[in-house]
Amino acid sequence: MIDLRSDTVTQPDERMRAVMAAADVADNVIDVDPSVRALEERTAELLGKPAALWTPTGTMANLIALSTHLRRGDKFLAPRGAHVLTNELGSAAWLAGGMPEPIDTDAGPGRPSSAAIRRLAAGAKQAPYYMLRTALLCLENSHNAAGGAVTPPDEHVQLVATARDSGLAVHLDGARLWNAAVALDVPPAALTVGTDTVSVCFSKGLGAPMGSAVAGSIGFVEQARRMRQMLGGGVRQGGVVAAACLHALENLDDLAADHANAERLASGLREFGWDVARPETNIVLAGVADVPATLTSLREIGVLALPMAGKVRFVTHRDVTTAEIDEVLRRIGEERARRDRRHEATSARA
Amino acid sequence: MIDLRSDTVTQPDERMRAVMAAADVADNVIDVDPSVRALEERTAELLGKPAALWTPTGTMANLIALSTHLRRGDKFLAPRGAHVLTNELGSAAWLAGGMPEPIDTDAGPGRPSSAAIRRLAAGAKQAPYYMLRTALLCLENSHNAAGGAVTPPDEHVQLVATARDSGLAVHLDGARLWNAAVALDVPPAALTVGTDTVSVCFSKGLGAPMGSAVAGSIGFVEQARRMRQMLGGGVRQGGVVAAACLHALENLDDLAADHANAERLASGLREFGWDVARPETNIVLAGVADVPATLTSLREIGVLALPMAGKVRFVTHRDVTTAEIDEVLRRIGEERARRDRRHEATSARA
Amino acid sequence: MIDLRSDTVTQPDERMRAVMAAADVADNVIDVDPSVRALEERTAELLGKPAALWTPTGTMANLIALSTHLRRGDKFLAPRGAHVLTNELGSAAWLAGGMPEPIDTDAGPGRPSSAAIRRLAAGAKQAPYYMLRTALLCLENSHNAAGGAVTPPDEHVQLVATARDSGLAVHLDGARLWNAAVALDVPPAALTVGTDTVSVCFSKGLGAPMGSAVAGSIGFVEQARRMRQMLGGGVRQGGVVAAACLHALENLDDLAADHANAERLASGLREFGWDVARPETNIVLAGVADVPATLTSLREIGVLALPMAGKVRFVTHRDVTTAEIDEVLRRIGEERARRDRRHEATSARA
Amino acid sequence: MIDLRSDTVTQPDERMRAVMAAADVADNVIDVDPSVRALEERTAELLGKPAALWTPTGTMANLIALSTHLRRGDKFLAPRGAHVLTNELGSAAWLAGGMPEPIDTDAGPGRPSSAAIRRLAAGAKQAPYYMLRTALLCLENSHNAAGGAVTPPDEHVQLVATARDSGLAVHLDGARLWNAAVALDVPPAALTVGTDTVSVCFSKGLGAPMGSAVAGSIGFVEQARRMRQMLGGGVRQGGVVAAACLHALENLDDLAADHANAERLASGLREFGWDVARPETNIVLAGVADVPATLTSLREIGVLALPMAGKVRFVTHRDVTTAEIDEVLRRIGEERARRDRRHEATSARA
Repeated sequence: MIDLRSDTVTQPDERMRAVMAAADVADNVIDVDPSVRALEERTAELLGKPAALWTPTGTMANLIALSTHLRRGDKFLAPRGAHVLTNELGSAAWLAGGMPEPIDTDAGPGRPSSAAIRRLAAGAKQAPYYMLRTALLCLENSHNAAGGAVTPPDEHVQLVATARDSGLAVHLDGARLWNAAVALDVPPAALTVGTDTVSVCFSKGLGAPMGSAVAGSIGFVEQARRMRQMLGGGVRQGGVVAAACLHALENLDDLAADHANAERLASGLREFGWDVARPETNIVLAGVADVPATLTSLREIGVLALPMAGKVRFVTHRDVTTAEIDEVLRRIGEERARRDRRHEATSARA
Repeated sequence: MIDLRSDTVTQPDERMRAVMAAADVADNVIDVDPSVRALEERTAELLGKPAALWTPTGTMANLIALSTHLRRGDKFLAPRGAHVLTNELGSAAWLAGGMPEPIDTDAGPGRPSSAAIRRLAAGAKQAPYYMLRTALLCLENSHNAAGGAVTPPDEHVQLVATARDSGLAVHLDGARLWNAAVALDVPPAALTVGTDTVSVCFSKGLGAPMGSAVAGSIGFVEQARRMRQMLGGGVRQGGVVAAACLHALENLDDLAADHANAERLASGLREFGWDVARPETNIVLAGVADVPATLTSLREIGVLALPMAGKVRFVTHRDVTTAEIDEVLRRIGEERARRDRRHEATSARA
Repeated sequence: MIDLRSDTVTQPDERMRAVMAAADVADNVIDVDPSVRALEERTAELLGKPAALWTPTGTMANLIALSTHLRRGDKFLAPRGAHVLTNELGSAAWLAGGMPEPIDTDAGPGRPSSAAIRRLAAGAKQAPYYMLRTALLCLENSHNAAGGAVTPPDEHVQLVATARDSGLAVHLDGARLWNAAVALDVPPAALTVGTDTVSVCFSKGLGAPMGSAVAGSIGFVEQARRMRQMLGGGVRQGGVVAAACLHALENLDDLAADHANAERLASGLREFGWDVARPETNIVLAGVADVPATLTSLREIGVLALPMAGKVRFVTHRDVTTAEIDEVLRRIGEERARRDRRHEATSARA
Repeated sequence: MIDLRSDTVTQPDERMRAVMAAADVADNVIDVDPSVRALEERTAELLGKPAALWTPTGTMANLIALSTHLRRGDKFLAPRGAHVLTNELGSAAWLAGGMPEPIDTDAGPGRPSSAAIRRLAAGAKQAPYYMLRTALLCLENSHNAAGGAVTPPDEHVQLVATARDSGLAVHLDGARLWNAAVALDVPPAALTVGTDTVSVCFSKGLGAPMGSAVAGSIGFVEQARRMRQMLGGGVRQGGVVAAACLHALENLDDLAADHANAERLASGLREFGWDVARPETNIVLAGVADVPATLTSLREIGVLALPMAGKVRFVTHRDVTTAEIDEVLRRIGEERARRDRRHEATSARA
């Protein structure tokens, strides 16, 4: 089986396991775990924020940020298909307390225009007391459901400025911010400019077994630490996994290889006539006639993918080699040839 | 001032006030208030449901219904611009606990197609444990933000059938269901077929000072009664206003006059070149270049309207006569003439 | 039936009904209803607060106040048996978001001592991030479950001062504050000194059919208005009932008669050997061996009461005359004599 | 420093670290992580329940269980001082939605009597619609704030039977159930009889770096898995820590040594005249005149403890040897002698 369902399937390698086994740890509730602290400091630095907080998952990282930004009666904006809208079991609504409004991604895949934000945020401040008040813009870079599409720094800066003008706070869901930074060849902090809070994940392409972080001001992180405890994310010797996350940051540059593999896969699929856009990072979205049927037939030839946004999603990652990408293409090609032959035989008989 | 902001501005007339003053009442928390009971029974009957519950507002009626249908991790569908999405301060999300997803109104103003529902509800039952589950379709008839557009019985039945097929419960926000029924010339119950719950309002076109109701099964109303108490809607001698609501149901047929007035207004405005669709009930939506400026200049000539869905909304109601509608048109025409003369004068000088 | 279950059973009298029928009203969501405004201004004045807000029920009034004071992770203190703890379906917890802690009422019935508050609030400010923070003291005057016991002004002032010293906000549930003020012969404002927010009810001893209010700072009432709307308490022509509430304030002095009746009832019951403390306001709590059996046998002789705090509660109110109190005592005495005779007969036979 | 603040400070030892480094893992969201599965199966077996679910923390485990048992308008009972009442930031209230009511621990430290439960749960089923319904009993064994006191199997069975009779569900917070079982010399399952759900912790005396579990029926664990995901507890390769938890279960018998150390410490402190009850497990509660001052002076001699329930709490654990306990006593004795000498000197001078 070649597993292209998600970069979350990546496993800790030997070196990462050795790092975990040697990690210096402490009770991170009543003290400060040194490995957690080291990770949080390094993360804050990379993201250009004063402070950061480790969380068990990216869902919790986003949830904590949204809970801090939103009050009952608030609305938040997020690009159509954003992870906080579709993949976090609605906790942004029922727990963080915000009414979501999807923004049209009219500037490109996963990317709303400043005009779209301005339109939706218009009157956010003057809304009468009996109406929703738009309080937050939640961006996502790279954007998962848009096929890993990235928002470049200049566009990002403009979107944030527009949100600010309308009085909105800005949270960036950067679950795959590392991929965006590598693809755009900029430091991660170039993509977080002006945001109040950012979440990032260590358990996707970087290969850590678990763990995300949410970064922002000192005051935000203080509130976030309390919220993490409330939600049940206040683990004790978290250093055993934080050490893996810190180590995973050394894998940052490896993401370029995943991006190259995604491009190789996309271009191979296009040659077979598949409807595939050029991937910007490590996600390949393929439009097919029948998603469930395609997933089943892929599984039969030992290739795993997932449905997403009405398409088939392939994700390249550090546990899949270029040779395996070629093997995926070979198998698909072979299967295709087999089908053609069957078709010819059937036609001949007819 | 001629007040076309909303049919909620209607005032109880002398007869209604007399009915309230004479109402038979009791403590409706520890006993049953006879006037509340009479209203609830009549409402249930009109809506073709086993039982109904009076609530102080339509917002509470919808909130109670949604709270009963939704669990954390559930998604609900509602036509884009629906009142529960835009006008209830997000309580459907933060309090009822549902993640909203707007449905495209591709079948007509305020009316989604069965295909749109099927698409969004697809896989509602088979969603893996880590994904949202679509649990509820929330319809609105007539649809406020779509200019009071109505969904006819046959379309309604089809939408409900599609929702059922996908395993969804169905709630109908019928704040102006009375208008829809009168416009379509069908009994209200013809528009509630197959729904689990329906809310209706007595404080809009029917003219009661306050009060709504939510109807459904006996079991639902039992739960709803408890939820109403929790939210602080468990009033004592509610009969003083319920009597007004019951009396207001006698005003049902008067709504036709409001609809005629809306058509008169719309047609007059169109003659002035305004961008106005033919109203289906008592709401006239006018597309104008600059909504705030238009509202201000209308106010200057003694005409009140409200912004809605990026347009100017006029609502006709029992406290506005046909003569007043004509007066509104006269003033707009006069103001228009004045402006034309000013413009000519300016041009002449130039 | 002589109904002593609650002062909530009181019915609007002819004059009050006439006032309602004549009330000047308006849409209180998009405008300001003049009768609601008059009531709110008068209530604020009586309570010595800058502003007040009408609500359909006292449960909503308390809920709005607590929602405003409390954040997730906060604890609030309330005297054991307080209405917010026992009678509001837990909305203080699940909706306002506070963790309740009952305070021992060691200073008298329903009255905690300053020492008890100090003990529980100790360290409220220094609590580490992973612990609850005590944020609010919620008092109740008169205290329902303590048999309508009152807290005098000097004790009130001391309790508030202690709470303030510990950094707590203070809310006063004054559902029967009117009774406390009349019993203590002080203006209501003497019992609200130093509190941030106060709720009062017009639908109990004062006889209005429905309605409460919550008072506090201008800023608080602004937030409260928004929260009222969210919860579904934003009614339109609320003036029809607010007028009754305003009129009910003229009944304030009549409460003394209810208190006298309560004392008359208590003293009569004591003569029959019942375990009854001297009532401070209009509530008589009787300790009996078997509460359900006693309620049933009372009902059989046409006297209605309710169970409360493990006792039988009788509430006097404006719809029960002194003659009826005497009739209640007569019936109980007669029933008692009957039972004694039966008992003698049985004993004689034995 | 000898750290007796909590058994949560225990660190993974070399063998445990080796086990973690070698753990077989997988993406536990979209697949099943084999190490997590092995831990969950073993835990379910030990607790005598059909299934179990790993969670990052005990707070999340309890929160998931309570969320599943409780509906809005429900009350739950827990022994005064229970962890869910005092130490989980009120999430039982604001997130699980229950109104807590502390039960008097009248049967012994941390142990309510069946009579107390019966009294509070009385009428749970017949409560009128406008009142709280008692839905859940939440026990804690051993009981932290009661100094690690245990409830023996026969008493446990009786409490559960009483709860059942009253129609309550039963959750057991077994954060230190392992200690209770070892102290009582019974299998853990003997202490979970009749409960619907149980939570246990691997990160306290057993020494795992992080992780708890919640066990119950198959249906419960299905719901729990979904709730864990919502709260942000759905980690990916959780096996790296689950393997440590599974390994930690081999440390079960070592807890007897902690209990012996606790007894040694308690008896030494009593010899110094401290007010210390005989510990039943690994927690020693000392009543002192001034808790903060005592903690400070202990810290000055290199002994760490925490305040709890108005006392000083010492917790013995696998990272503290008997020799260190003796050293603690030696230092306290020495400090005491020093103070006596100072006192004598001062007295002599005086």
